Amino acid sequence: MASSGHGSGRQEAADRRLRLIAGHLHPRIAASECKAEAAESDPVRAKTVPKRRQEVMKWNGWGYSDSRFLFNKKGQAEFTGRRYRLGGLIFPSLKDWFESTFGANLQHKSPPTAALNSSAITPPNLNEPFLQDLKSMGIPHSLEAEDRVFRAHGHCLHEIFALREGRFGRLPDMVVWPNCHDDVVKIVELACQHNACLIPYGGGTSVSSALECPPDEMRSIVSLDTSQMNHILWIDEKNLTAHVEAGIVGQELERLLNESGFCTGHEPDSMEFSTLGGWVATRASGMKKNIYGNIEDLVVHIKMVTPRGVVEKSCQVPRMSTGPDIHHFIMGSEGTLGVVTEVTLKIRPLPEYQKYGSVVFPNFEQGVACLREVAKQRCAPASIRLMDNAQFQFGHALKPQVSSIFTSFLDGLKKFYITKFKGFDTHRLCVATLLFEGDREKVLQHEKQVYDIAAKFGGLAAGEDNGQRGYMLTFVIAYLRDLGMDYYVIGESFETSVPWDRVLDLCRNVKERITRECKERGVQFPPMSTCRVTQTYDAGACVYFYFAFNYRGLADPVHVYEQVEHAAREEILANGGSLSHHHGGMALHDEGSRWGTSAGIWAGARIRF
Amino acid sequence: MASSGHGSGRQEAADRRLRLIAGHLHPRIAASECKAEAAESDPVRAKTVPKRRQEVMKWNGWGYSDSRFLFNKKGQAEFTGRRYRLGGLIFPSLKDWFESTFGANLQHKSPPTAALNSSAITPPNLNEPFLQDLKSMGIPHSLEAEDRVFRAHGHCLHEIFALREGRFGRLPDMVVWPNCHDDVVKIVELACQHNACLIPYGGGTSVSSALECPPDEMRSIVSLDTSQMNHILWIDEKNLTAHVEAGIVGQELERLLNESGFCTGHEPDSMEFSTLGGWVATRASGMKKNIYGNIEDLVVHIKMVTPRGVVEKSCQVPRMSTGPDIHHFIMGSEGTLGVVTEVTLKIRPLPEYQKYGSVVFPNFEQGVACLREVAKQRCAPASIRLMDNAQFQFGHALKPQVSSIFTSFLDGLKKFYITKFKGFDTHRLCVATLLFEGDREKVLQHEKQVYDIAAKFGGLAAGEDNGQRGYMLTFVIAYLRDLGMDYYVIGESFETSVPWDRVLDLCRNVKERITRECKERGVQFPPMSTCRVTQTYDAGACVYFYFAFNYRGLADPVHVYEQVEHAAREEILANGGSLSHHHGGMALHDEGSRWGTSAGIWAGARIRF
Repeated sequence: MASSGHGSGRQEAADRRLRLIAGHLHPRIAASECKAEAAESDPVRAKTVPKRRQEVMKWNGWGYSDSRFLFNKKGQAEFTGRRYRLGGLIFPSLKDWFESTFGANLQHKSPPTAALNSSAITPPNLNEPFLQDLKSMGIPHSLEAEDRVFRAHGHCLHEIFALREGRFGRLPDMVVWPNCHDDVVKIVELACQHNACLIPYGGGTSVSSALECPPDEMRSIVSLDTSQMNHILWIDEKNLTAHVEAGIVGQELERLLNESGFCTGHEPDSMEFSTLGGWVATRASGMKKNIYGNIEDLVVHIKMVTPRGVVEKSCQVPRMSTGPDIHHFIMGSEGTLGVVTEVTLKIRPLPEYQKYGSVVFPNFEQGVACLREVAKQRCAPASIRLMDNAQFQFGHALKPQVSSIFTSFLDGLKKFYITKFKGFDTHRLCVATLLFEGDREKVLQHEKQVYDIAAKFGGLAAGEDNGQRGYMLTFVIAYLRDLGMDYYVIGESFETSVPWDRVLDLCRNVKERITRECKERGVQFPPMSTCRVTQTYDAGACVYFYFAFNYRGLADPVHVYEQVEHAAREEILANGGSLSHHHGGMALHDEGSRWGTSAGIWAGARIRF
Repeated sequence: MASSGHGSGRQEAADRRLRLIAGHLHPRIAASECKAEAAESDPVRAKTVPKRRQEVMKWNGWGYSDSRFLFNKKGQAEFTGRRYRLGGLIFPSLKDWFESTFGANLQHKSPPTAALNSSAITPPNLNEPFLQDLKSMGIPHSLEAEDRVFRAHGHCLHEIFALREGRFGRLPDMVVWPNCHDDVVKIVELACQHNACLIPYGGGTSVSSALECPPDEMRSIVSLDTSQMNHILWIDEKNLTAHVEAGIVGQELERLLNESGFCTGHEPDSMEFSTLGGWVATRASGMKKNIYGNIEDLVVHIKMVTPRGVVEKSCQVPRMSTGPDIHHFIMGSEGTLGVVTEVTLKIRPLPEYQKYGSVVFPNFEQGVACLREVAKQRCAPASIRLMDNAQFQFGHALKPQVSSIFTSFLDGLKKFYITKFKGFDTHRLCVATLLFEGDREKVLQHEKQVYDIAAKFGGLAAGEDNGQRGYMLTFVIAYLRDLGMDYYVIGESFETSVPWDRVLDLCRNVKERITRECKERGVQFPPMSTCRVTQTYDAGACVYFYFAFNYRGLADPVHVYEQVEHAAREEILANGGSLSHHHGGMALHDEGSRWGTSAGIWAGARIRF
């Protein structure tokens, strides 16, 4: 073909073509080289998510060991550590909000068991032939109890609750750390050869039970930890793509791309810990999808290792019509079909300008009507989120002491209140937070358009600070569940997507249903049941619910919790919502089977091949 | 659930909810009613694509019988009929262009065999039990030779060439016309029960051989014609969606939606004849995808009948993360997995304002650089297409006599030439045509932004008329192939998608390769080998090729044609392009198997289940 021609003109063309092809083969070649050492030697990286997670992360709660909410001796809420801008600050209003919302009492504590007691852990059920072959290949692994415990769970309520009580279910029998795609190929071949059971492990933030080991699994379970496959293998500035190993965590990916002046713009709330491979496997959505798209919009190429070999497309093109799209088989498969090892993603130049904003609406109905109009006009900013009144009150409770940017939302409102907000009922009003990105001039135009629409629905601009703080709380809120669990309060979030005309009914009905179910199931205190609209689409929206309650007096709080959550899901389905918008297929355990997903186990995959 | 509550408040909520659900079940119920009569009684519809296609369409060429190019007694090219704005017009320059480009000669004719001779058609191989059950169900069918011939092919060159010579391959043995989803369920059940072979037939515009009957198929082949399933079942103005039967043709869908003030904006070049179901099955792309999206962006819900039952999602939501996306199994399956019967699509309010435009660049390289920048800034208009110089010359040859809007491109340029285009080489310059849509103010802003970018790449605005005519030729160009075949000229188009940094190499190399291959395979006249960039994406573009040659002196012109096309595809792959951007999986016959698609036959699907 290319080289089949005669004559200098054709020879030139052939040479040109060969250079061209060679140039584009290069990245693939690079992709096969193992680069783990580079990663280990990166000091920043070592501090974020090290190979030995126990060095910096909690074993029975969310996030970093040095960062937690607690009530100090004076009974004031405090957030420890220096990692977050809220670190070291006091939250004077949180105690009252906490006690009045949940009927909780700082005298009634439910602390976790002190430390991780390795002796309580059943020894591993080893597959010796697998282990020997693995050793001979020099692929790093561990049999240590701590390493196994850290990879035995995601962050479902029942998983964390059990850990706090020092209860361990079936654990992986060992952990392996492949350093690159080729290592994964070898490990999967070994697993098939010796009938070991593999569970891919990325950031461990799963809330779909995909990391749970089936108690009755007799085979040796191997946790395949992708954390050492965390390199950007190439950046293509002409096509605005980057080829990245799937184990990289979100904050690392953005940090490293930013150094080159780029970003993916993919920012799920879990991005501190969740990985690229996890985003692909669970079909993740990002906060700023209105500009950057969800993961399915960002992916150009995926490489996945399966028991039947490596699955990948033969070219890196923007669109193909040749048959079903294998990327959409992989996205949502949650580890049941294979291990995602490398991904080519779209990247964008860093935005020139960012601006936060917020709008207050007299009520939730008006807010939703505004978001629907914004979607209809297709002028949604990078992010637009509408909180209901309960979340607005919650935001107020998170007002830290002393700090300019951190003036509470209500204080922020005072500036406007007398003049503008007369007649707004603080027990009905709701708030939208906004984030605009782009070049300065366009952002300002865009901002005007959105505020003009808001005004038509009675919405009043409520300042940049209030918007910015809303987004700054994103990473910190995840730490609050542990505080609640110290005082008999359990809770979780779940989400759905729904057509526009059913958003209001769904929100109201689901919140009512939760309250009713709690009462009927003997919960002795009124639950917190609140929601926000977090994403807008042409034909509908994503709604995100929080619910939590004080479980004092309940024999089996987690069971009650799961019964209520199940009822809430049934209510969502009855109102035309989906099981999940972005949390994956098994967000509701007994619904998982509807989708034929299994708990991320090869066995599950095999029968499907 | 909903109705399980006690107490008036909860009872109300329950009632509200039941009404809500009932309201949303309604469309599904409606979807099951058969409405064929309504369609038959629609006079406009009857004129576009009737049940008996032979009444208005050619049996051995493209489109409507009353519309064709011909050279009249004076040797002037003429387009017959009154359906198109070009109908009845003379094209004085076409003859010279045609003769000089292809070395053709109006004295050397290669006319088709006169008429369709039904006696030459082998009688049907009937499956009597299937036929009897079908009759008892009252589902319309036909065994007539003409009906079978019309559904035995798409519009690949080899298919039309054979028909012109009066050669018929394996034909479907009968044609059935289901009137609704339920009819299709019955037909598929019968086919499974009696081992008949079904080939779904929509608009018959396939260029991927998906409609070809395998010569060795021993079972009775039944062509399932969806043309009577052509109703809009409901329009949801709140969510901006429409639920439509899959057999509706594009021009009908847009006409009917426009009557309600809406559109889908999905406009593939085949939209006069291609159907919604065909778009889904082949993963179609529309000219205006930059605003409206490709078919995968437009689809909210798909209903498909398979041998294993009906496949559809359980809700109509904007996004789901629960497992692999079945829509992406269906899109691109080209009839091998089932029959698409109903689709919920996004709709948009009709745009307030449309404006055409055009830009002339000194050369193709500058034009591509401009499109890449437009894509980078994400400001592509509804449509932007860049023609190379050969297509620009071609456009000039299609200048009709007398007509203001139809002043030829070159005439259009004259206005500017002396002042602006000094130094532009008319043998190197290339042209981009533009279509803007939206509200007037935004369109004008948008237009300015695009022309400003174009200027940076030496592009000069060349007027609205030139742009508009470019798009008006879209539907007429398809008729030119038949004219060519009357004078020993055969040709076809094929397309690909490719990363931005390889667009130029791919275009040049593929065109060179075609010319070289023609020469090496004994084609005695230089071929026409030309391309245009028809779509822009973040990471690449779609390139559309035309190639044609004078086959006088060749023993087996179609074989030569296919060898050259195959070589061109190899060249595309070697340059990092995809097999196809929007023409489906089997665009290259012997590549089809790479994608596991079969010629749209259930048998093909079965083994895959």
